[in-house]
Amino acid sequence: MNWLLPDHISDALPHEAANIERLRRATLDLFRSHGYELVQPPLLEFLDSLLTGSGSDLKLRTFKLVDQLSGRTLGVRADMTPQVARIDAHLLNRRGVTRLCYCDSVLHTLPTSQAASREPIQLGAELYGYAGIEADLEALRLLALALKAAGTPASRIDVGHVGVFRALANAAGLNGSEEEGLLQLLQTKDVPGLRDFCSRIAAPYGAALMLLPELFGGDELLDSAANRLPDLPEIREALATLKQLRAALPDLPLSFDLADLRGYHYHNGVVFAAYYPGYPSAIARGGRYDGVGANFGRARPATGFSMDLREIARLAGNGETTGAILAPWALDNAALADKIAALRAQGEVVVELLPGQEENDGLLCDRRLVQQSGEWIIQVIDGK
Amino acid sequence: MNWLLPDHISDALPHEAANIERLRRATLDLFRSHGYELVQPPLLEFLDSLLTGSGSDLKLRTFKLVDQLSGRTLGVRADMTPQVARIDAHLLNRRGVTRLCYCDSVLHTLPTSQAASREPIQLGAELYGYAGIEADLEALRLLALALKAAGTPASRIDVGHVGVFRALANAAGLNGSEEEGLLQLLQTKDVPGLRDFCSRIAAPYGAALMLLPELFGGDELLDSAANRLPDLPEIREALATLKQLRAALPDLPLSFDLADLRGYHYHNGVVFAAYYPGYPSAIARGGRYDGVGANFGRARPATGFSMDLREIARLAGNGETTGAILAPWALDNAALADKIAALRAQGEVVVELLPGQEENDGLLCDRRLVQQSGEWIIQVIDGK
Repeated sequence: MNWLLPDHISDALPHEAANIERLRRATLDLFRSHGYELVQPPLLEFLDSLLTGSGSDLKLRTFKLVDQLSGRTLGVRADMTPQVARIDAHLLNRRGVTRLCYCDSVLHTLPTSQAASREPIQLGAELYGYAGIEADLEALRLLALALKAAGTPASRIDVGHVGVFRALANAAGLNGSEEEGLLQLLQTKDVPGLRDFCSRIAAPYGAALMLLPELFGGDELLDSAANRLPDLPEIREALATLKQLRAALPDLPLSFDLADLRGYHYHNGVVFAAYYPGYPSAIARGGRYDGVGANFGRARPATGFSMDLREIARLAGNGETTGAILAPWALDNAALADKIAALRAQGEVVVELLPGQEENDGLLCDRRLVQQSGEWIIQVIDGK
Repeated sequence: MNWLLPDHISDALPHEAANIERLRRATLDLFRSHGYELVQPPLLEFLDSLLTGSGSDLKLRTFKLVDQLSGRTLGVRADMTPQVARIDAHLLNRRGVTRLCYCDSVLHTLPTSQAASREPIQLGAELYGYAGIEADLEALRLLALALKAAGTPASRIDVGHVGVFRALANAAGLNGSEEEGLLQLLQTKDVPGLRDFCSRIAAPYGAALMLLPELFGGDELLDSAANRLPDLPEIREALATLKQLRAALPDLPLSFDLADLRGYHYHNGVVFAAYYPGYPSAIARGGRYDGVGANFGRARPATGFSMDLREIARLAGNGETTGAILAPWALDNAALADKIAALRAQGEVVVELLPGQEENDGLLCDRRLVQQSGEWIIQVIDGK
């Protein structure tokens, strides 16, 4: 039983791997064409660095190891966004706007859902150094473009603003651990727990926090939320920002959700989650997380998004499969070897049949190289 | 000090990451053009599966974790070759020849050398299901082609044959653990230890094993080795195979080394290591490891090679850098947005200047989009 893999861990076999690779290249090229530069942070870091600025959720999800060289505890990254923020804050040290992207495996101790892999391939783009709403707009547009290019266009993008929750928690006078506890109740949509918690919070903030899970909907939500929530400056500002986004992005399928705080560990402004028909969870998430870099020595405005490429590839289905050309073993035949090299340079797949080999069970060879009147020509294989 | 990374662990920043990505694509495309299909085995497996059929060296180099789902011990892969053999043996279950390739990070508890990363990016190609020498020839040719395409052509490829060592160990009547101990002495080039060990082995095998570290050189080595080593059928056969390889690959810089067994954990036939000027270790290694798949339910002939793409990229240096085009923020300008989209679709990098942003510290923008007589045109930026 040596071939059994742990639960929620799998191989990507040729079809799936080719599909993942195709989408990886297309998306990274799209990011690059928008000025996002690729970075590759390491799989392993000191646990302290890896968890800097993030919540307890990420800590539980991170595999821990002991470093034989330093004796310190290492973590295998469960999320690349804080790593990329570290690169922006400390390593690049650029004054202006920096756009970065990445695509690599992360590991989770436990799957985030029944269907989730414990080794997602996290693909994302981040924009640093710009506090204005235009950075959020760019992130939302790029996310929509990336999902469309992958063949999984978002049917809905839920937009929220962590500032609404934070303003209510502040006004209610909650301390850090109370706020964290309340956030968890909201993230897990634990309504009885939420009711219990909020009953102990002074009016009008307890009632307003209780109201959050109901505050989702279309454009009209933004007006009704303004009427139903306490008139705090931070809330007014957050709702105005969401209105601006809506107006600036008429082509995107935006809706609003002021309580969807799942998966947001370090975010503190506009947040968003993209959905695809028939898939229960978000297929991409992102938002603003200004100041995370402060833990690495430099506070910077930041926004971005990421998705699990393994999941996107599964939803997108396979791309076109190109055929292959079967050729005789060419070692002693310079003319044939040249012909094969030329075909390969043109992008063709040419498989050399090894001496005595009768079949090729691997790639589907739909053509073969045959010699006719001294020339090597390509012949379609009948029935393929 | 949150930005400090563990020793022998590093970020790939934009220049290095772009270079790694460029070489990754070029090499995987080369492999694909030869009929090698990409697979992506997982980072984590049950430790038992991961170490099946490999030596104690790999065990020490593998990070261990506890699986919260099963309670069993997991390992983070330190080598992908056995994983790919598992895929061939168990998952694909093809009768004929299967060609597979891969490119992903592996982790090592300790670096293999002073300069080595503990997170190499293992890039390799493997050919299963063919026992003949032509598979070794294909592997050697493909390795040479891959290194050349990467810009790090091999200056020397040392070829050996594990059969010579195995034949001597068998003839000397060594048991498994003695053979393993002797292999370690040879791998670490521990000459005093080797002398001590061999002095206790009956003639002529002790003397022959002592002789192995001297048996390296050019074509003439194969004849002198035949004269100096005991006349065992397996040795005759191994030397004949090496002669055949030499004759079939006149263009490759082959030399021979019958004692270089470093890094070969599960190999049992022709083995090879490619070198690059000025770099002390091999930049790629490979060889035959028939039967490893038996541990996964199906014994199959197998040969292949792999390299650390991180190292290759460092040696290859950067590719050409393409410039980027700076554009004004285009959200409210449909004509400009269309122009930008068209340029991006052509493969250009276009960076939109965010409102109020004065500089772009990231990508080098060597051109800008400006409006002249109502048209958007590209202008070279002076001094770039």
